Amino acid sequence: MDRDPILLTPGPLTTTLRTKLAMLKDWGSWDGDFNAVTARLRSQLLDIVHGQDSHVLVPLQGSGTFSVEAAVATVVPRDGHVLVLDNGAYCKRAARLTQMMGRKVTIVPHAEHEAVSPAELEARLKQDASIGHVMLIHCETGTGVLNPLAEVAQVCERHGKGLIVDAMSSFGALPIDARTMRFDALVAASGKCLEGVPGMGFVFLRKAILDGCAGNSQSLAMDLHDQHQYMEKTTQWRFTPPTHVMVALAEAVAQFVEEGGQPARLARYTDNCKTLIDGVTKLGLKPFLKPELQAPIIVTWHAPDHPAYDFKRLYAATKQRGFILYPGKLTEVETFRVGCIGAIGRNEMSQAVNAVAEALHEMGIRT
Amino acid sequence: MDRDPILLTPGPLTTTLRTKLAMLKDWGSWDGDFNAVTARLRSQLLDIVHGQDSHVLVPLQGSGTFSVEAAVATVVPRDGHVLVLDNGAYCKRAARLTQMMGRKVTIVPHAEHEAVSPAELEARLKQDASIGHVMLIHCETGTGVLNPLAEVAQVCERHGKGLIVDAMSSFGALPIDARTMRFDALVAASGKCLEGVPGMGFVFLRKAILDGCAGNSQSLAMDLHDQHQYMEKTTQWRFTPPTHVMVALAEAVAQFVEEGGQPARLARYTDNCKTLIDGVTKLGLKPFLKPELQAPIIVTWHAPDHPAYDFKRLYAATKQRGFILYPGKLTEVETFRVGCIGAIGRNEMSQAVNAVAEALHEMGIRT
Repeated sequence: MDRDPILLTPGPLTTTLRTKLAMLKDWGSWDGDFNAVTARLRSQLLDIVHGQDSHVLVPLQGSGTFSVEAAVATVVPRDGHVLVLDNGAYCKRAARLTQMMGRKVTIVPHAEHEAVSPAELEARLKQDASIGHVMLIHCETGTGVLNPLAEVAQVCERHGKGLIVDAMSSFGALPIDARTMRFDALVAASGKCLEGVPGMGFVFLRKAILDGCAGNSQSLAMDLHDQHQYMEKTTQWRFTPPTHVMVALAEAVAQFVEEGGQPARLARYTDNCKTLIDGVTKLGLKPFLKPELQAPIIVTWHAPDHPAYDFKRLYAATKQRGFILYPGKLTEVETFRVGCIGAIGRNEMSQAVNAVAEALHEMGIRT
Repeated sequence: MDRDPILLTPGPLTTTLRTKLAMLKDWGSWDGDFNAVTARLRSQLLDIVHGQDSHVLVPLQGSGTFSVEAAVATVVPRDGHVLVLDNGAYCKRAARLTQMMGRKVTIVPHAEHEAVSPAELEARLKQDASIGHVMLIHCETGTGVLNPLAEVAQVCERHGKGLIVDAMSSFGALPIDARTMRFDALVAASGKCLEGVPGMGFVFLRKAILDGCAGNSQSLAMDLHDQHQYMEKTTQWRFTPPTHVMVALAEAVAQFVEEGGQPARLARYTDNCKTLIDGVTKLGLKPFLKPELQAPIIVTWHAPDHPAYDFKRLYAATKQRGFILYPGKLTEVETFRVGCIGAIGRNEMSQAVNAVAEALHEMGIRT
């Protein structure tokens, strides 16, 4: 039967029908009606971080990684030096793209089951004055660990360093306040906790650094300073925008506001996460992270220690029951991941727990 | 009344309802069902240029310009030298992005109302042996002029130079045959003559040069060699794909095949273009290009030589009647543009001509 499975993945995720229906219309990218949608959306996104006074919002075509790369390319001077706080796969990706574009990178490694350390950051910044920028992944989706954004922002501000935050999988759900946390760039995307469809990212850039960003980027497509200037001057995107993705995001944000904004979204995801963890723990499985480090975004589970376990079989058996799981991303431990985000609630999470139980039973794994 | 206007623009364009309806479903980007759609689409796109033996197809997130930049970044070595055949705005953009990423660029300027010259290209290649690659815009959308792809490809092959083709607004409509035209990279996008929605591009890369492309790109997101390797290994996209845009393109390509492929699409657009040119010429307006240079994609019109003319008023008056025009992109002559592409036929074009006639009349311009 042709019913959509529920996506328990960190994006693309399950969206509402209302969000998808917004895509049943073709918009001229030069037309005033479309530009008004862009302008309203940019302002609404600034509201979410209380950033109207301090930041501008620059949308960008492509996946979230494109926006991370664009943020680094735009904010960091060509001879800049970036310290990357690394506790997972997305941190490593950020370091790699920074290195590839020729910026100097210092990686500060952490264990994947731990949050990054503001104290260690402070020590490193004292040791090496050439570091100009710090890169932090707010919620490292490789494991689901929540990193201490507020504390890292304080350290960066105290030392006069620019902070670049990848808030891809936290934005909209976890509190981010530009009035109390100073960041030069903060990156998120359409197809995550705002519950839009994938296809565009966006970057908050601090107004105070904006002029200094001119000419940093070696990439035309990823030059957010140029993108911003053009948008301010013309109200249009520089290059063809993903019009349908844009209007879907606008519709998703309207529902976000109606639901009660970030606090309401956090409450729903927290409930999803609790339902999942309570249920799957009762099946005998163990979460990878300590509870205090677990963001209510995606949960990494230790694979059952059983000879019959095979992720592909678990995936197929839960998919057959209408739920799409996500593979693990750890190299040393066998894990799988289950997302708590998207247009889903306690019902879907309870049913997902049941589906996992039945799948394990079918595989002959009695836990 | 809330009816979609017809987009007479070079993309985003009017798509069929069937194409848009494909977006009413959420797909897991890691899931086998979605990866099968990607694989089938990649193969179908290769069929369109008869490139199964000679080329691979690498899709990329973002607008068409992202794919142009990615093609240059991937194909041209870091110390490479690119000759850009320039007869319009998109040629200048290609030159700019090539320069920004640090490749040496030689621009060969042409008048905007003329096609680029294969003879001049040949002379330049003889003069400067350091040129490794040539960049050609197949249909320069700034004016709508058709450039001589086959002849340029011959010159490049004879001199052993790599050819990079921006076929953004021609692909799917104008004949391109990889068996008889040698190109290292050819770029197009979802929201053009294939009549999908905007949000992704794709690049045909010649198999013979593929291995040599490793490590050329300074951008992680735009590294098509890496994107291709990952896709071959895993069947997945490297970074989150624009899933809804992808399935809409797959549905659009299914309709493209049903319609009769490239020859049928060319026939329809040629008829659209003829209907437009015959009709608007009768209103007393003059096309910017000589007929033999006019691609049936977008037509540039001289603005009426009348004191009451104002593009914004013409735009508003035709929009009110259900048609979205496109502004001119020439600096020295006042023009406007009308697209012939999208899921539209003779009916829509005739009605568009009537709308332009009524709009001019309303503005007090009797031609």
